[in-house]
Amino acid sequence: MNIDAYRYFSYGVYIISTWDEGRATGFVANSVMQITAEPATIAISVNRNNYTHQCIEKSGKFAINILGEHTEPSVIGTFGFRSGRDFNKFDTVSHSIKGFMPVLTNACAYFTCEVVGRMETDTHTVFLGKVVDCDVVKPDEPMTYAYYHKVIKGKSPKAAPTYLPEA
Amino acid sequence: MNIDAYRYFSYGVYIISTWDEGRATGFVANSVMQITAEPATIAISVNRNNYTHQCIEKSGKFAINILGEHTEPSVIGTFGFRSGRDFNKFDTVSHSIKGFMPVLTNACAYFTCEVVGRMETDTHTVFLGKVVDCDVVKPDEPMTYAYYHKVIKGKSPKAAPTYLPEA
Repeated sequence: MNIDAYRYFSYGVYIISTWDEGRATGFVANSVMQITAEPATIAISVNRNNYTHQCIEKSGKFAINILGEHTEPSVIGTFGFRSGRDFNKFDTVSHSIKGFMPVLTNACAYFTCEVVGRMETDTHTVFLGKVVDCDVVKPDEPMTYAYYHKVIKGKSPKAAPTYLPEA
Repeated sequence: MNIDAYRYFSYGVYIISTWDEGRATGFVANSVMQITAEPATIAISVNRNNYTHQCIEKSGKFAINILGEHTEPSVIGTFGFRSGRDFNKFDTVSHSIKGFMPVLTNACAYFTCEVVGRMETDTHTVFLGKVVDCDVVKPDEPMTYAYYHKVIKGKSPKAAPTYLPEA
């Protein structure tokens, strides 16, 4: 078992947003992938300790915001390393409402989804979302996880599926 | 709904391999992501019409091979556009047996997995695999789906979760 093998997976960088009884909240995710083309569904992996988890359970909806290389890296700090439990993440982040969901105005694209399935694992829930609406917001090179690590010198929080101890 | 938004998702390019009663087989996938870190699990999305789907169901095991930019593009042709039902895909592809599973010797890295969960969707099964073993095979830049499209000028088969009609 050589855990360096994990460094070869490719991911994007996403903000998953949802409603917390009228207040917008969200978190940073890498584990996002399309599952079916017709009807279009997308799966996301969410740690059960993550505050957004219970908000998605209650609202039954989420949005995926795809970050670009020109998205301000501070967005990742705001969404990735603080809990929405005691902090209004959207207060300092430019956003609008699309398809009744909060979406970032400085991301490449958004997808609004309705939860239509789920799979439980030891620590994370895989939510399956049916795409209700999607659009391009700001054409840009999508930010990859590799770019985030190599260029922005970013790290992963311990609750992330893709967390690896420092080499 | 603007389907161009789908072009901003980031994926890698993978060969999912397994056993067909003693014969190695597999297919090309993009929809692969880590779900949990401890224990390590990885989800893959497999079309139920794909021959490898029934082979994974029977064997209860699969391997993920992460392709690199230097992996011969012919591997994608061999695994991606023909069915393992009537063709021995591994006959012309260099491979070895690791953790009792067939793995490519010209990929970046491999993971051997045991199926521990599944989620059914309209057309695809999401198999959850617990990582049994993993290793780096040939250090390389991982091939991204964007690289496959832009540099290799590759296309997606219709059974892929990420299939989009030609623009």
